[in-house]
Amino acid sequence: MAYKIALAGIGKIARDQHVPAIAASPDWDLAATVSRHGSVDGVEAYDDLGAMLAARPDIEVVSLCMPPVPRFDYAKAAIAAGRHVMLEKPPGASLAECHALEAMARAAGVSIYATWHSREAAMVATAKAWLKDKTLESLHVIWKEDVRKWHPGQTWIWQAGGLGVFDPGINALSIVTEILPDPIHVTASELLIPENCETPIAASIDFAHPGGARVTAEFDFRKEGDQFWTIEIEAREGRLTLLEGGGALEIDGKAQTAGPATDALTGEYPRLYANMARLVRAGGVDMDLAPLVHVADAFLLGRWITVDPFIE
Amino acid sequence: MAYKIALAGIGKIARDQHVPAIAASPDWDLAATVSRHGSVDGVEAYDDLGAMLAARPDIEVVSLCMPPVPRFDYAKAAIAAGRHVMLEKPPGASLAECHALEAMARAAGVSIYATWHSREAAMVATAKAWLKDKTLESLHVIWKEDVRKWHPGQTWIWQAGGLGVFDPGINALSIVTEILPDPIHVTASELLIPENCETPIAASIDFAHPGGARVTAEFDFRKEGDQFWTIEIEAREGRLTLLEGGGALEIDGKAQTAGPATDALTGEYPRLYANMARLVRAGGVDMDLAPLVHVADAFLLGRWITVDPFIE
Repeated sequence: MAYKIALAGIGKIARDQHVPAIAASPDWDLAATVSRHGSVDGVEAYDDLGAMLAARPDIEVVSLCMPPVPRFDYAKAAIAAGRHVMLEKPPGASLAECHALEAMARAAGVSIYATWHSREAAMVATAKAWLKDKTLESLHVIWKEDVRKWHPGQTWIWQAGGLGVFDPGINALSIVTEILPDPIHVTASELLIPENCETPIAASIDFAHPGGARVTAEFDFRKEGDQFWTIEIEAREGRLTLLEGGGALEIDGKAQTAGPATDALTGEYPRLYANMARLVRAGGVDMDLAPLVHVADAFLLGRWITVDPFIE
Repeated sequence: MAYKIALAGIGKIARDQHVPAIAASPDWDLAATVSRHGSVDGVEAYDDLGAMLAARPDIEVVSLCMPPVPRFDYAKAAIAAGRHVMLEKPPGASLAECHALEAMARAAGVSIYATWHSREAAMVATAKAWLKDKTLESLHVIWKEDVRKWHPGQTWIWQAGGLGVFDPGINALSIVTEILPDPIHVTASELLIPENCETPIAASIDFAHPGGARVTAEFDFRKEGDQFWTIEIEAREGRLTLLEGGGALEIDGKAQTAGPATDALTGEYPRLYANMARLVRAGGVDMDLAPLVHVADAFLLGRWITVDPFIE
């Protein structure tokens, strides 16, 4: 039987990814939306979460797609009303609020899932399996995209808590923390902040790796032309390159195809919703904050450099 | 019987606090120092940690007092050599390195202790006991000191990872997270960075509290004249003020004295070393990172404002 779900925050990511993933899944029935501006054709629309929670006790799960800063209050209210909660990435604007949400969910006996959609990209599991027994020599993230093309009108990205270039960059870190068998930590970072913004438009990070491998990341929102969502890895035993945000993989220069799927699902968001259905059935909690920890550490250790203003 | 201990990083805090606390305790025998520049009269001195670990397998515990950025490599080496580790605050320059150290210590079966000396100030436990059943209405941290007076020549404070005004400010956050029964999280912060420095000279933070109390903090390194290390709390039931960094307490305007001590110890560092001795005997791990999480969140959510250069 399908779970009834409400989708809160009907913006670009909800329309592009969440609505089709829910519609295509036998696990889910989109029963309501909550949004001040958006709605979905044929679905009951609320503009206030409290009103939805009061009117629809039959809706067991709430999926939150709004930007990170307002997300905490929605999650808190949904948990207080006994609903399971699914969080778009990043799971919050601060680490402490994520810790608090996890504690609230455990106390209320509901599931909470901090999703990281890029971990569900087609070739991530294959990359992880290959790396498991290799000796890492270097890992380099190159995540360079055109903010004007991919984030039109998303002014929240430039406000404190909006993460700037780490909004896409955290996707790379979610893959890195998924596929590397060993923990890394930030040792230095440079953050380039446009003089009219509060968050970085570009950044570079150095990490320490327990085996001494060189681990670095470069993020840039100013890239026109070719776009890069690439992770280049050299191990003693060979070379692995994840391309297209984890959607494509080369090993020693040769393109790989995904192994036999453990289920029939393809696509990042269909997999996230299948994970959430499993989590709710099992009564589980999945709040891995590692990607957000690395971003917070990059800010904590960051050298801030002011650059030209950003005009969309 | 006393544990043999080595003290690594012989600077101001080691001389002012660690050496006398160890000397006065029956639990500890200061058997070696590790420092490139400092030493302690009558104690075997090494300038390299690896050399000390190799030469002195009888030293079971290493206490690390150097600045946060270099601390990780020392802690890692000490754990790898099977020694218990005590960390000055903050326990590291990044959250991820602290998580990694905890995992290493657990895997090696040694104790690790992230110390927060201000939590051991004389009146903190009394304040915590009073707050336990009160309804919080507001909490305000005012932590304003003269960096030239208290941190002479500590240039590392102004370099990325040195925390700037959060080097003392994290002491306030260590008290707040100890005495408040409910979790808080940063919602906004302003960081004032001198144009010739990489870390803030002053900061203000707003926190969210689950009961809706107003929780704020002001930190300033530029304070001359009267110095403030104060936490002002209003509850529905009365008013509590912690003064002198937790050393003095007023409730409803009336000065309080400490209750009967659970042990004969007075002083923050003697208590830290007594805690460490208990932890080693019990085979325990104590890595509460909450104060550092709030500082990282303040950077992550911070609006950075450039101010006049700082000239010591």
